[in-house]
Amino acid sequence: MSKGIRNYQVGEKVESYFLIKSATKSIASNSKPFLTLILSDKTGDIETKLWGASPEDEASFASRSLIYVQGDLIDYRGRNQLKISSIRPATALDNVKIGDFVRSAPISAEDMLEEITQYIFEMKNPNIQRITRHLLKKHQQEFLESPAATRNHHEFVSGLAFHVVSMLRLAKSLSELYPTLDTDLLYSGVILHDLGKVRELSGPIDTSYTIEGKLLGHISIISNEIDAAARELKIEGEEVTVLQHLVLSHHGKGEWGSPKVPVIREAEVLHLIDNVDAKINMMDRALDRVLPGAFSERVMPLENRSFYKPAFHEPPIEM
Amino acid sequence: MSKGIRNYQVGEKVESYFLIKSATKSIASNSKPFLTLILSDKTGDIETKLWGASPEDEASFASRSLIYVQGDLIDYRGRNQLKISSIRPATALDNVKIGDFVRSAPISAEDMLEEITQYIFEMKNPNIQRITRHLLKKHQQEFLESPAATRNHHEFVSGLAFHVVSMLRLAKSLSELYPTLDTDLLYSGVILHDLGKVRELSGPIDTSYTIEGKLLGHISIISNEIDAAARELKIEGEEVTVLQHLVLSHHGKGEWGSPKVPVIREAEVLHLIDNVDAKINMMDRALDRVLPGAFSERVMPLENRSFYKPAFHEPPIEM
Amino acid sequence: MSKGIRNYQVGEKVESYFLIKSATKSIASNSKPFLTLILSDKTGDIETKLWGASPEDEASFASRSLIYVQGDLIDYRGRNQLKISSIRPATALDNVKIGDFVRSAPISAEDMLEEITQYIFEMKNPNIQRITRHLLKKHQQEFLESPAATRNHHEFVSGLAFHVVSMLRLAKSLSELYPTLDTDLLYSGVILHDLGKVRELSGPIDTSYTIEGKLLGHISIISNEIDAAARELKIEGEEVTVLQHLVLSHHGKGEWGSPKVPVIREAEVLHLIDNVDAKINMMDRALDRVLPGAFSERVMPLENRSFYKPAFHEPPIEM
Amino acid sequence: MSKGIRNYQVGEKVESYFLIKSATKSIASNSKPFLTLILSDKTGDIETKLWGASPEDEASFASRSLIYVQGDLIDYRGRNQLKISSIRPATALDNVKIGDFVRSAPISAEDMLEEITQYIFEMKNPNIQRITRHLLKKHQQEFLESPAATRNHHEFVSGLAFHVVSMLRLAKSLSELYPTLDTDLLYSGVILHDLGKVRELSGPIDTSYTIEGKLLGHISIISNEIDAAARELKIEGEEVTVLQHLVLSHHGKGEWGSPKVPVIREAEVLHLIDNVDAKINMMDRALDRVLPGAFSERVMPLENRSFYKPAFHEPPIEM
Amino acid sequence: MSKGIRNYQVGEKVESYFLIKSATKSIASNSKPFLTLILSDKTGDIETKLWGASPEDEASFASRSLIYVQGDLIDYRGRNQLKISSIRPATALDNVKIGDFVRSAPISAEDMLEEITQYIFEMKNPNIQRITRHLLKKHQQEFLESPAATRNHHEFVSGLAFHVVSMLRLAKSLSELYPTLDTDLLYSGVILHDLGKVRELSGPIDTSYTIEGKLLGHISIISNEIDAAARELKIEGEEVTVLQHLVLSHHGKGEWGSPKVPVIREAEVLHLIDNVDAKINMMDRALDRVLPGAFSERVMPLENRSFYKPAFHEPPIEM
Amino acid sequence: MSKGIRNYQVGEKVESYFLIKSATKSIASNSKPFLTLILSDKTGDIETKLWGASPEDEASFASRSLIYVQGDLIDYRGRNQLKISSIRPATALDNVKIGDFVRSAPISAEDMLEEITQYIFEMKNPNIQRITRHLLKKHQQEFLESPAATRNHHEFVSGLAFHVVSMLRLAKSLSELYPTLDTDLLYSGVILHDLGKVRELSGPIDTSYTIEGKLLGHISIISNEIDAAARELKIEGEEVTVLQHLVLSHHGKGEWGSPKVPVIREAEVLHLIDNVDAKINMMDRALDRVLPGAFSERVMPLENRSFYKPAFHEPPIEM
Repeated sequence: MSKGIRNYQVGEKVESYFLIKSATKSIASNSKPFLTLILSDKTGDIETKLWGASPEDEASFASRSLIYVQGDLIDYRGRNQLKISSIRPATALDNVKIGDFVRSAPISAEDMLEEITQYIFEMKNPNIQRITRHLLKKHQQEFLESPAATRNHHEFVSGLAFHVVSMLRLAKSLSELYPTLDTDLLYSGVILHDLGKVRELSGPIDTSYTIEGKLLGHISIISNEIDAAARELKIEGEEVTVLQHLVLSHHGKGEWGSPKVPVIREAEVLHLIDNVDAKINMMDRALDRVLPGAFSERVMPLENRSFYKPAFHEPPIEM
Repeated sequence: MSKGIRNYQVGEKVESYFLIKSATKSIASNSKPFLTLILSDKTGDIETKLWGASPEDEASFASRSLIYVQGDLIDYRGRNQLKISSIRPATALDNVKIGDFVRSAPISAEDMLEEITQYIFEMKNPNIQRITRHLLKKHQQEFLESPAATRNHHEFVSGLAFHVVSMLRLAKSLSELYPTLDTDLLYSGVILHDLGKVRELSGPIDTSYTIEGKLLGHISIISNEIDAAARELKIEGEEVTVLQHLVLSHHGKGEWGSPKVPVIREAEVLHLIDNVDAKINMMDRALDRVLPGAFSERVMPLENRSFYKPAFHEPPIEM
Repeated sequence: MSKGIRNYQVGEKVESYFLIKSATKSIASNSKPFLTLILSDKTGDIETKLWGASPEDEASFASRSLIYVQGDLIDYRGRNQLKISSIRPATALDNVKIGDFVRSAPISAEDMLEEITQYIFEMKNPNIQRITRHLLKKHQQEFLESPAATRNHHEFVSGLAFHVVSMLRLAKSLSELYPTLDTDLLYSGVILHDLGKVRELSGPIDTSYTIEGKLLGHISIISNEIDAAARELKIEGEEVTVLQHLVLSHHGKGEWGSPKVPVIREAEVLHLIDNVDAKINMMDRALDRVLPGAFSERVMPLENRSFYKPAFHEPPIEM
Repeated sequence: MSKGIRNYQVGEKVESYFLIKSATKSIASNSKPFLTLILSDKTGDIETKLWGASPEDEASFASRSLIYVQGDLIDYRGRNQLKISSIRPATALDNVKIGDFVRSAPISAEDMLEEITQYIFEMKNPNIQRITRHLLKKHQQEFLESPAATRNHHEFVSGLAFHVVSMLRLAKSLSELYPTLDTDLLYSGVILHDLGKVRELSGPIDTSYTIEGKLLGHISIISNEIDAAARELKIEGEEVTVLQHLVLSHHGKGEWGSPKVPVIREAEVLHLIDNVDAKINMMDRALDRVLPGAFSERVMPLENRSFYKPAFHEPPIEM
Repeated sequence: MSKGIRNYQVGEKVESYFLIKSATKSIASNSKPFLTLILSDKTGDIETKLWGASPEDEASFASRSLIYVQGDLIDYRGRNQLKISSIRPATALDNVKIGDFVRSAPISAEDMLEEITQYIFEMKNPNIQRITRHLLKKHQQEFLESPAATRNHHEFVSGLAFHVVSMLRLAKSLSELYPTLDTDLLYSGVILHDLGKVRELSGPIDTSYTIEGKLLGHISIISNEIDAAARELKIEGEEVTVLQHLVLSHHGKGEWGSPKVPVIREAEVLHLIDNVDAKINMMDRALDRVLPGAFSERVMPLENRSFYKPAFHEPPIEM
Repeated sequence: MSKGIRNYQVGEKVESYFLIKSATKSIASNSKPFLTLILSDKTGDIETKLWGASPEDEASFASRSLIYVQGDLIDYRGRNQLKISSIRPATALDNVKIGDFVRSAPISAEDMLEEITQYIFEMKNPNIQRITRHLLKKHQQEFLESPAATRNHHEFVSGLAFHVVSMLRLAKSLSELYPTLDTDLLYSGVILHDLGKVRELSGPIDTSYTIEGKLLGHISIISNEIDAAARELKIEGEEVTVLQHLVLSHHGKGEWGSPKVPVIREAEVLHLIDNVDAKINMMDRALDRVLPGAFSERVMPLENRSFYKPAFHEPPIEM
């Protein structure tokens, strides 16, 4: 396979398969239609223009199609662009599939599910355990595929599950250091906190917000579901309210989207470890191709900071 | 009856019935117990101390008891206090009841219910109408008694219903001026927006926040209930999501407690008229005993402003 | 007449009269001059380029000229542009006038003046009445033509008067619901609050800020005029100070341009209804061509929100 | 005379004349009236209580009276208080006058007026000169007596004039260092910027805000007066607008009370030197009795900072 | 020994040894001196008054003295106070020492030092290792005794070392979960980040800020020391700058006292774990005596929140 | 010589020498390399493109080269650009040197050094004097060349020294008006406050931040150096701490980069005069080519304001 679009330099020839992430039709100044395609593989995205596109082209080169392209990587007004010399749809003979072109979590969905299930299995409070298991089961399929965000962090296939697994491990480490923490609450909070994203986001490829997501948000969605699950399972008791509080408060502040600030210790800890995992993930991604002694690109959700890799650190393994 | 505790001056004798709003036991520096009582009637509150309180006194002068008191209104460190000369529980012969001592809305609960019912009756969208009617019915009793807040505005018996009625009238006026507004949505939003307070607040006397209120808040509570009502009534359709959005966003901003900002026109209008009714109510209360040419006390939730009554305005009717 | 520039799609032929809203001369990379024209009709604006413009062209196609154009609507870097095939000045024979090409209020200036005059007529406080009448009369002509802003809301011919009429109706509705409001003060505040805009803004077409507007602002301008009017009319009394306070505080806060926060009930209400009318106007404009189930463009002065039209709402009448 | 109330220690006997700055009647818990008097001399204030005050006492010991007192300086709940052993009104024989008991500027009013007049005399722009001279003349008497604020800085007799003189000297120094500054504008801005305080504040003793001051503020008051002066003097020209801009913008930001931010160089410089003079004055006052190596009390308007006097600095001259 | 002052109820007799944490002399309204003593044991503090204190009393009951007291716990204006019936200095026969009365870390100073030394031993980068070892050695004695703050968190003897040990364990856990982290940098950052507090704070009992602490702060103090250490050890290389950056940025933001925001991954992680350890410590302290189903006192540095202990949690072990 | 690139109009021919400030290689859409050159002279900068650049061109037209160019000033998308018709490196025969093309302070480095030395000579406190002299001497060469910032104010050769000289004169004027100021401290603070910029910035041409500058900042750098200097000179005493405080606090607030707010009078004054000199410098630069009656470009660091030059002011001397 190709070395990945992110690893090409301006001036190089590109001959490779790609997934079309999005395709937009426009009219050029010569009044002819053209397509702007975002091509992607596991390493990144590249924009290209298909001039004088026919109706057949529109059909062949729609979003989510797989294609084979030859062209040159050029610099267009400071951004890389692919100048096409030839393009065709991939066929069965090409033996490529969508999964080859999208980033996904470094652990398989099955392994993640097994690990999460184990955490649920260890819970001692039956109310917390049953609600958690019920909701995970209900959304299991989408949960294992969903990204954790549209961009910024864990924005890949299974990103949500991977974020949850990382946070569970963090929660476990913390509860060994601070043994008074209620692990049932904390693990359940971790598993449920972003589960509403399966309804807030449109799915793993070219992720966007659903209307429900824009009007209610994943926090209120999952709070509703906890309430409904408790009713369905005929569970009463303060655990229901407390779990909802964990979910409602996990963004930490009103201006960050939480209608309540955390007022339970485990709710505050949930917020803290969500933060730690998301921030380390964002920094790692920003630094993964930076050479020692250089600064990364700016990272918007980290207050637009640019991160420095000390000169005495190792360079990235393959560049 | 008495002229009302708010109308007494320091130095006057007080002989009157009161409702005990709260009673707190403490130990004096002579090691004897005493009670701090907050006495109230329709016009306001007064603090008093019952020194050397016996266990019988504790029982007789508990919160929500009716009593008869004689004493003097004194100034204690800049605040008015009642110095008791005699105190006794009210008896059947005194012919007083709790309702005589608490402020309540200027319209009767029955009239308000009838008016609100009429607004629901006029709704054309059956999904919106059924959800609204269902939830109002479910909480009707507490809704008609509940205050709209623990303090600041509409903090009296039936204050919530009165706030809703005022806002419905405002909504009606607005929709005549701006005829493109969807009155079904707007009326339903008005009726439901604070309905969660029947679970967030402890009731009409000596109102405080419930644990559920502190952990979830009235906004999430009623959003959950709309969801549950739709399921129970087997209603599907965007109306359910939109109604939840109206409720979730009615505080207008994250830092004011709303997990979503209003992104539907009627949601923004709901937020605006909630604001208008609450602010006018707070200003009226601050100014109702201020003489022309003078400033009111500071009003904390109105950015701590002190309001001026112009010299050419009328004085309060009876002072 | 034409169906209006806003209703054309990219790729359509355009043959229509327009008003030139602005004309700017530049030098192209071939060192020849060209004109950038903003053409407008009642439905909106379109940019066009007139390449190789001669000195005669500059004279013929100056700002505020009426023209006849043939061309194509194209997409230029994501924005619509008109590609001219022929252009000529309109002549007497064309029978078009400026008024046909500018948006204006949905009520005639005469009707608005009559309605406002009626509100003044009903005032009972002679000091307030005389100052209001005097200042309205002084600026009557510009007031009836002026927009209420350079953009965002009521930014059309007679927009200021229309904003005032809407607010007067709102004020009247409110005073019926809250009868303790002083309608003299409130109506006068509404009529005067933005009257300084006749000196702050440059007029109804291609509106910009005057130097006086930038250095003083409409709030201080009209505060000065109230003071001068009172002196001229030999009016003394607190009404003069109170009216100035209403005007000075109507933006509500220092950071929004008011040197004083409202500390009179009617001043706060003036601020609230100014807000309500401006916000509803902005939302209506953003939503007027949005299909049900879709989001509007972002509205900058409404915290950059994008508004949603519920799927169960009506589509715009003609599209 | 006495060494000044600020120089007494707890436990010392006090025998001295004082000015009564304010007198407030209250009712004690024994139902008898008492007076709370704030006594002042040039060095500071002290609170005292006059128990069992008769109607004659009320008349004799009213605000602005001069008295002779004997008593002890005690500590009452952490604050100094004077415990009276005897008190009597001062008589003609005592040979004391109000001027002996109030702080005033270190330069005489006559000298300050002369210095300010000289600055006006040197102005070259006749429009600026005439407006400045006219307004200073109009308010000359109150200007020479007024404090510059109710507290915080220059809060003494002639404090306003002294603040203006200091700023004029600063402006002169600056214009020598930055010779492109327009000194006419700058000097006029300095003289006029706070002149509205003669109507905003109640006068030099026990200073409070007038109603006009609370509703309009000194910034709008003097902006109005510049406008009126120009009309009266039949002056036209941009100088009038520019002078108003300097005054309107001299607080620098909306949230600090300026309806416009400075957009003229001299307006920004006026704001800067106002700041410099006020801040140095506040720091000097906070540090004037602090020993080297110690911290001052907190200064609220300087972000509540407590200032340190380095150990290698001189102690205050007399303590 | 006594059950600890925090465990007494109002009305109980107290007979116990205490450490005098602070002693302040004042003058009562009867002109006699009295002492306000803050008495402390390991469980908390109590205020008491010693009326009519003689010069001998002042000497006997100075700060840091050990005493024996008999008295009653009373409520004085809503706060607990100890009413003394007898008081005497502790003597050798009483067999008590200061260490019995101050809170200290739950691990011994020796064990903590050994653990920290082990982390330093494992470092691979010699520059980082040498600087860290040098500075720890230089301040070892004060480091092992110092609290981590004057109040809020880890404000007890050896609190600083305990905070460091907890953070090192956290850092270790994190680096197992995120293996790309540079543990040398992270461990060194943890050990050094608050080391400046040995010069910023006055020591373990009745802790206050030194003048140097107020003028420079612990962040700049230790940054200077790293610089000086590198010079003394003749170490050159980017490690010196990077270590200083970790220390300078560990508060995360300018408004929280850091002159630089973290722009190195380990600097951000240092900030995050400092936060986690401090916040969990503060919540634990607030909740440690709260019954299930109740709220704690408000915690100022945690945005003044009051924390809830769920009803299904365990009660505190001994109350 | 040329009249300066800033004084050319679009459409004019340019024939002139320039310094290449930066040269960037890119690949055009025809796959050929081209250079983007920023050419500068004392009056400003201009961008130009060198199409089809050969490797020799890259060498000849590198950053910091002097060249001779002929071409046309054109408008390219709203910004001026130079269209090259011929370009060649300058040779010895051209008799031009770098110093002819860079802006520098209006006073010579020698004169500034002499003036600063005189201020140091007048200091009376030997500790302050020795530290100041030592550090100035240590960095004298770079100090005399360094700009004061990468842009915004004093961003030219010797800009730092010129900023210091202006501030020293301001400090002197102020200390004459407020004679209690400690001039030793103030002068030393002025000389040292930005001295860390010699290590934070990369030098006088095409100035950027060094890695050390980004990780530590000039404030911490010079604070470290004061500490080291005192150690080297064996100076002890509070002066060292106080000087460090002045430097650490001179940005005034945490969010502006100061780890400590000023708590010494001279530290606050240092902050104030730094502000005054920087702001006046920025306004002068913005206004220096603006015609009377017009507004300047927006000035980002002055809250993005656009400044007005009153119509009655003088036009710029030569335009």
